[in-house]
Amino acid sequence: MKESDLEGAPPGVAATVAQVGERALIERIRARVPAPPDWVRVGIGDDAAVVAPERNTFDVVTTDALVEGVHFDLAFVPPRAVGHRALAASLSDLAAMGARPRAALLSLGLPDALPAGDFDALVDGLLALAAVHGVALIGGNIARSPGPLLVDVTALGSAQERRILQRAGARPGDVMFVSGRIGSAAAGLEWCRAHGAVAAQAVGPEQDRVRERTANGGQDPAPAAFRAAAARFLYPDPRIRLGWALARNRAASACVDLSDGLADAVHQLASASGVGAIVDGDAVPIADDVRVWFEAQGRDPLVSALTGGEDYELLFTMPTRHQRVLQAVARQVGGLPLTRVGVLTRDPRVMLRRDGRDGPLPPGFTHFR
Amino acid sequence: MKESDLEGAPPGVAATVAQVGERALIERIRARVPAPPDWVRVGIGDDAAVVAPERNTFDVVTTDALVEGVHFDLAFVPPRAVGHRALAASLSDLAAMGARPRAALLSLGLPDALPAGDFDALVDGLLALAAVHGVALIGGNIARSPGPLLVDVTALGSAQERRILQRAGARPGDVMFVSGRIGSAAAGLEWCRAHGAVAAQAVGPEQDRVRERTANGGQDPAPAAFRAAAARFLYPDPRIRLGWALARNRAASACVDLSDGLADAVHQLASASGVGAIVDGDAVPIADDVRVWFEAQGRDPLVSALTGGEDYELLFTMPTRHQRVLQAVARQVGGLPLTRVGVLTRDPRVMLRRDGRDGPLPPGFTHFR
Repeated sequence: MKESDLEGAPPGVAATVAQVGERALIERIRARVPAPPDWVRVGIGDDAAVVAPERNTFDVVTTDALVEGVHFDLAFVPPRAVGHRALAASLSDLAAMGARPRAALLSLGLPDALPAGDFDALVDGLLALAAVHGVALIGGNIARSPGPLLVDVTALGSAQERRILQRAGARPGDVMFVSGRIGSAAAGLEWCRAHGAVAAQAVGPEQDRVRERTANGGQDPAPAAFRAAAARFLYPDPRIRLGWALARNRAASACVDLSDGLADAVHQLASASGVGAIVDGDAVPIADDVRVWFEAQGRDPLVSALTGGEDYELLFTMPTRHQRVLQAVARQVGGLPLTRVGVLTRDPRVMLRRDGRDGPLPPGFTHFR
Repeated sequence: MKESDLEGAPPGVAATVAQVGERALIERIRARVPAPPDWVRVGIGDDAAVVAPERNTFDVVTTDALVEGVHFDLAFVPPRAVGHRALAASLSDLAAMGARPRAALLSLGLPDALPAGDFDALVDGLLALAAVHGVALIGGNIARSPGPLLVDVTALGSAQERRILQRAGARPGDVMFVSGRIGSAAAGLEWCRAHGAVAAQAVGPEQDRVRERTANGGQDPAPAAFRAAAARFLYPDPRIRLGWALARNRAASACVDLSDGLADAVHQLASASGVGAIVDGDAVPIADDVRVWFEAQGRDPLVSALTGGEDYELLFTMPTRHQRVLQAVARQVGGLPLTRVGVLTRDPRVMLRRDGRDGPLPPGFTHFR
């Protein structure tokens, strides 16, 4: 046991972050971070971090915040998943630009009473995802929060000048594709909310799932479909490889991530590109189990999937003449489904086509609505 | 008046950020940001920002958070000062590394009821300081906060490899210098707390102060000394020019900023460098008015100045043979005082010498104490 575990905590009682203290918390992070690559010239522990840039690339940088009570609820989201999701949100932004992620900064606002074990789990969750994508944690900030737990992650990546993907750039006639399955994370969120922390604790990130399923066999207390949906919500897999393949093959005319849902992504991309869109509702890829479940709740599976956020898939567009390139991209991203979901139009309206009839595409999630 | 001002707000009632909505808030920021320099390839409004690196330099990056109720109280800190201070804290970190600031990302957590005018003022305060230092606001994030107002700023700068200043690097025998006057911000904080928002609203940043003093003449309702101290607290001036001069002249063996007070800075620098220190209490530069005021409160001016944070000055060390270089540095930073405040020692203890007697230097401010 480390000395810091004992600071101020009575014997037998789990320490809180307030008892451990700011300096010891930073040391707990530092002890968990693997030796940085040589391009990190100054890492955790100085006034700022120093990074050698990658030759002939531009810096790509983004910041994303998770706020307790708005983006997650510790009653059913394990701290490990909070750390994972905070980094995933920023990495997903880099993926949408076609950037290769390199480094991250972690800024935490911690309620006094947060158990130090939860703090450790949060950091472990972030670092596990960082390891998968070769991201170095190079710095950050720790402050008290008089209210919610706050997790703000800044991610830095690199991209070649002529291979940067943007929201703007799509043209009328370009076709739209989306990766993965839509709505699973929204269903997973509701499953976690209904089943609580104990069930969520049993759900692992994507890379653990096969192993878990095998280990549990028929003993699995949760239906496999919902464990998968919960994992999509708790441990989203940012589509770094897809973004990079799209950039490298110069396949896409525009790209955006689905952090606020597919409907929002279509609106954002169309608006930035100055075009309209028709989404083909029948083509939107929704997992069968998720579709059945939404129906059982009396909800429209398509609208639920379009407007539910947290999927962290990519929406991208390409001219129809590029569709051969799409096959190369598909090979490079392994089994990740890439589904054609619509077309961009000169008509500036953003429409949803269902059963041959067009109506306005619903808006996506925004804060303060 | 913009359309967004009217969204949901009854006539004659000032809109809140919740009524304005996330998208319109982003537009309000975008409308305030001047045209970015050409090295910003993608700015506000995409999934991430893209920046062309400066030739032959390294990226220097830092993040700092201000949390309402911990770092500031809106009862006596105007929103404009919150925006200024949030950027100043990150720029001060870059100054301590000898870096030239280039760009910033702003991540906000906003309570529903925050008046939209306060949001605008916060952004204006940040952008005014950004303009002084040639910093481009290139992106960020807006989220709801169910609790305090949260302001997280990531700053990016550049520095040449061999001119980076670090906390580590000081050697026994090196002398310590501090910039500016210590304790003014702590006194200013207490003055603002006692006099409230109306008085604080009348205090401007450093560049406005001369004009204000002239304009007010003898009519000034607040003693000039305390208006100056309040300005040091509300509108700290990050020592970018000093950090850059120290780096360019290769004058300093180590450097750290004083965000958590001089005592903390000495502890941090000594610990990172693996040395001890003796601070000469009689040499610590405290403004006369501030000293008198601390004494009138029955407090030890030296201890108050050493342990009060928020000064955002720099502490740096240099070998005694470099002291000629110090004169060049002093010329390059104009009238900013640079005061010798002690020496580093082989003995690992960190001591304060007062009236010829040595005792332990008090610890600085840390969160959760």
